[in-house]
Amino acid sequence: MGDRVSARYEIETAFKLSEAVEAMAGEQSTGTFARVPGETDELREAHAARVERITQTGEGRRPALPGAKVPPAAATRPVYRRAEVELSWPLANMGPSLPNLLATVAGNLFELAQFSALRLLDIQLPPAFASAYAGPQFGVDGTRRLAGVAFGPLIGTIIKPSVGLSPEATAEAVSRLAEGGIDFIKDDELQADGPHNPLELRVEKVMRVLNDHAERTGKKIMYAFNITGGIDQMLQRHDQVRRAGGTCIMVSLNGIGLAGLDHLRRYSQLPIHGHRNGWGLFSRSPDIGMSYRAYQKLWRLAGADHMHVNGLRNKFCEDDDSVVESARTCLTPMFTPPDKDCIVMPVFSSGQTARQVPDTYKALGSTDLIYCCGGGVVAHPGGVAAGVASLRQAWEAALEGRALDEAARDNAELAQALDAFR
Amino acid sequence: MGDRVSARYEIETAFKLSEAVEAMAGEQSTGTFARVPGETDELREAHAARVERITQTGEGRRPALPGAKVPPAAATRPVYRRAEVELSWPLANMGPSLPNLLATVAGNLFELAQFSALRLLDIQLPPAFASAYAGPQFGVDGTRRLAGVAFGPLIGTIIKPSVGLSPEATAEAVSRLAEGGIDFIKDDELQADGPHNPLELRVEKVMRVLNDHAERTGKKIMYAFNITGGIDQMLQRHDQVRRAGGTCIMVSLNGIGLAGLDHLRRYSQLPIHGHRNGWGLFSRSPDIGMSYRAYQKLWRLAGADHMHVNGLRNKFCEDDDSVVESARTCLTPMFTPPDKDCIVMPVFSSGQTARQVPDTYKALGSTDLIYCCGGGVVAHPGGVAAGVASLRQAWEAALEGRALDEAARDNAELAQALDAFR
Repeated sequence: MGDRVSARYEIETAFKLSEAVEAMAGEQSTGTFARVPGETDELREAHAARVERITQTGEGRRPALPGAKVPPAAATRPVYRRAEVELSWPLANMGPSLPNLLATVAGNLFELAQFSALRLLDIQLPPAFASAYAGPQFGVDGTRRLAGVAFGPLIGTIIKPSVGLSPEATAEAVSRLAEGGIDFIKDDELQADGPHNPLELRVEKVMRVLNDHAERTGKKIMYAFNITGGIDQMLQRHDQVRRAGGTCIMVSLNGIGLAGLDHLRRYSQLPIHGHRNGWGLFSRSPDIGMSYRAYQKLWRLAGADHMHVNGLRNKFCEDDDSVVESARTCLTPMFTPPDKDCIVMPVFSSGQTARQVPDTYKALGSTDLIYCCGGGVVAHPGGVAAGVASLRQAWEAALEGRALDEAARDNAELAQALDAFR
Repeated sequence: MGDRVSARYEIETAFKLSEAVEAMAGEQSTGTFARVPGETDELREAHAARVERITQTGEGRRPALPGAKVPPAAATRPVYRRAEVELSWPLANMGPSLPNLLATVAGNLFELAQFSALRLLDIQLPPAFASAYAGPQFGVDGTRRLAGVAFGPLIGTIIKPSVGLSPEATAEAVSRLAEGGIDFIKDDELQADGPHNPLELRVEKVMRVLNDHAERTGKKIMYAFNITGGIDQMLQRHDQVRRAGGTCIMVSLNGIGLAGLDHLRRYSQLPIHGHRNGWGLFSRSPDIGMSYRAYQKLWRLAGADHMHVNGLRNKFCEDDDSVVESARTCLTPMFTPPDKDCIVMPVFSSGQTARQVPDTYKALGSTDLIYCCGGGVVAHPGGVAAGVASLRQAWEAALEGRALDEAARDNAELAQALDAFR
C-alpha cells in the first residue's frame, strides 16, 4: 500500500454492492453526487479513493437502520446485502493528520443514504503518521519504571464514591489504599476539577500522602489525576501534578478530542491515562459506529500511554471476546521497525475481582496491564490490604498455571475473595 | 433548577423503569455497582444525580440493541419499556467545563447493561457555563458584517472536486465563483493541509483573487479555509488566513474536539465555521447516540459561529423535519439575558438548489443562514453567475411569498434552474 491510508468497513445496502461502495469512495474523495467541472481523469487517478475489496457476508429483507434509500428497480422488494469492504486513499489527500484522517475515514460517509449500516472496523496508516505524531511517551516500560512494578500487572483501584469526597477525604482514602499495598489509583472520570473537589487542592493532599508513603517504603504509588479540561487548564494542571511529585495524568479522550490529546502529549512529562468514557456511543450498535481496533489507534498515535478496555464479566454490556480483542490490540504494534510500535498498557476495570484473573491472563498471555478493581479491593471482607493481597495471589496462581481454588488453599485472602465475590 | 445541569434521554430497558433510571443516575454520580464506604447520606444528598422525571412512551418484546441484561424475574418473557427521562446534577460535581460535562451526561452511561437503547436528547446548562465559555464571537451579525451581506441568506458554495485541485486550480475556481457573484465559499472537509494542496499556498492564491475582487467591487467574499489540525497548527494557520486578509476559518469539530475548539476560539479573530462531519455516527441509530439539539449546544458554547445542519431533501439520509429542527435550534438562545444567547448561523448544504428555497424559508422564518449549493451553482446550465442569480431570485420570491413557478416567469435564471434541477 506504500503511502496509502486504508480503512475496512462493515456495510449494508439495498444497492448493488459495487455501486454503493463506489459512491462511498467518491463521497470521501474526489466525487460528489454529480460529476463537476475539474474532476478530470488525471485528478481521479491521483486522488480518488480506491475500492480494494468487497466481500459479501450476508443478506436480508429488513434494513438494520432506518433512513436508507432503496434503488428504484428494487423498490418493491429490496434485498439488503451485508459486506466487508476496504477503501484506500493516497496520503497526498489529507497528509499525516489525525483530525483530517477522521474526516476522510469517519466523516460524512456515516450519513450516506445508500447504507442501512456502516461501521468502521479498522484503519491502516502509512509510516508518515508514525513520524508526524509523538505516540505514547512512557508505554509499558515507562509506566512500570515510574510505578516501581517491574513484573506482573499493576494492581489498581478507582477512588469511590466517584464524586462528593473532599480533597481531604480523597487523601484519607488514598492513605488506606497505600497502606493496603496498591500499585495504582485513579480519579473517577466524573471527578476532575469540580468546585467541591478542586484539582489543585486534591493534588496537594493526595501527593502529601503518597510522597510520605514513598519516603517510608521506597515505593511511589502511581495516581492518575484527572486533569481533563481546556488546553491551557490541562497544561497548568499537568504542572501542578508534576511539581507535587505526581507520576500520572488522566484525561477523558472524547471530551478533549484528538487535537487536545496530541497537544498535551507534546508538553507532558508524565504518562497519560486515556479514559474512553462515552465509548458506548461508538460501540453499542452493531450497525453504526467504530470498532475499538480502529478507535484506539487514533489515541495511541496521539499519545495515550494507558487505554481503558473494560474487563471480563464486567458490569457493562460488552462481551468478553470484545474485551479480549481490545486489550490484545493495545499490545499489538501499530507500525513496524524502525517506526515506533505505539504499544500502550490496557486498563482492565468494571466489576473486576480475583475471580476474573486466570481468564484475563489466559486471554492476554501477558501481565503488561493495569488491573483496576473497585469493590474487589475495598469491599474485600478482610479490608483493603487483604483485597490487594487476594489479587496478587490470583495473578501468581495464574502465572504458575494453578487453579484459583487450589491456590486458595494456602492463600487466605484469595480464599476470602473467592467466597465474597461470586 | 438554579445551578444544576440537566439532561433528557430516551431509554429502553427490561428492568423496572425507576430502578433502571436510578442505576443510571448512580453510575453518573456518587454510586457504583455496590455501596462503598464513604458513600454517606449527606454525600448522596449533596452530589447524587437526581431523577427529575420518567415518562413511559412505549413497550415491546424485542430489545432495540443487543447486549442488554434482563432482570432474573423477567428472564423468560422480558418486556422492554421505552421512556423519556430527565436527570439533573449539581454543578459542584463537574464545574462549568464542557469536556467534564460530557463525561457526566454522555459518558459511561451508554454502556450500562440495563439499557437496550439510550440516546441523549437535550441538555440544559446553568449560567455558569455562559460565563466560563466564550461562545460565538461573530455569530449572525459579525458574519454579515464581514461578508458584506446585510440582508437575506449568504449564498454559498463548496470547492469541488473536494480534493485533488492544486492551490492554483482552487484559486481559478474561486475566481469564477467570485465573478459569478457568490457570497461565501468553503473548502471541503476533506481538504485541509494535504501535501497536494498545502493550506499556506492555497490561502495565498485564493486571497489574491478575493482581495483583487474586493478592490474592484468593494465586496470581500467570505472564504472558510479548513484549518483543521493540531492546536499549534491551527493557531498558525489562523494567522496565515488573517494576514492574507481572509475572513473565516473552518474546522472539523469531531476531529479537533471540544478542548480544541475552545482554545482556537479564545485565540481567533475570525468567525469559525463548524463542520460536523462524522455526525452520522451520533445520529443514525434511533437507539444510541445524541440529538443535534444537545450536540450543537456544546459546540456553540465552545465558540463555533456557523454550524452545519444538512439541507431539505438532501443527498444524505436525514429527513426534513430533523433538518428544520436542527436549524431552528441554532437560532434559539441557549441562555437568557444578561447571559449570551450563543446564536449561530445554520449552514444548509447537500444537494441544495433553488428548488428547496421556499420550504427552507417557510420552515425557518428567517434568512439568518448560509445556503450552500455545489451543483446548484456550478452545474447551472447558464454557468456560475446564473446559478447564483437563480438562488437569489428564489430567495426573493420566498420572501415575497411568490411561488417559484410564478417567479420563474420573469426570472430567466430561476426558470433554467427549475428546469435543470428536478
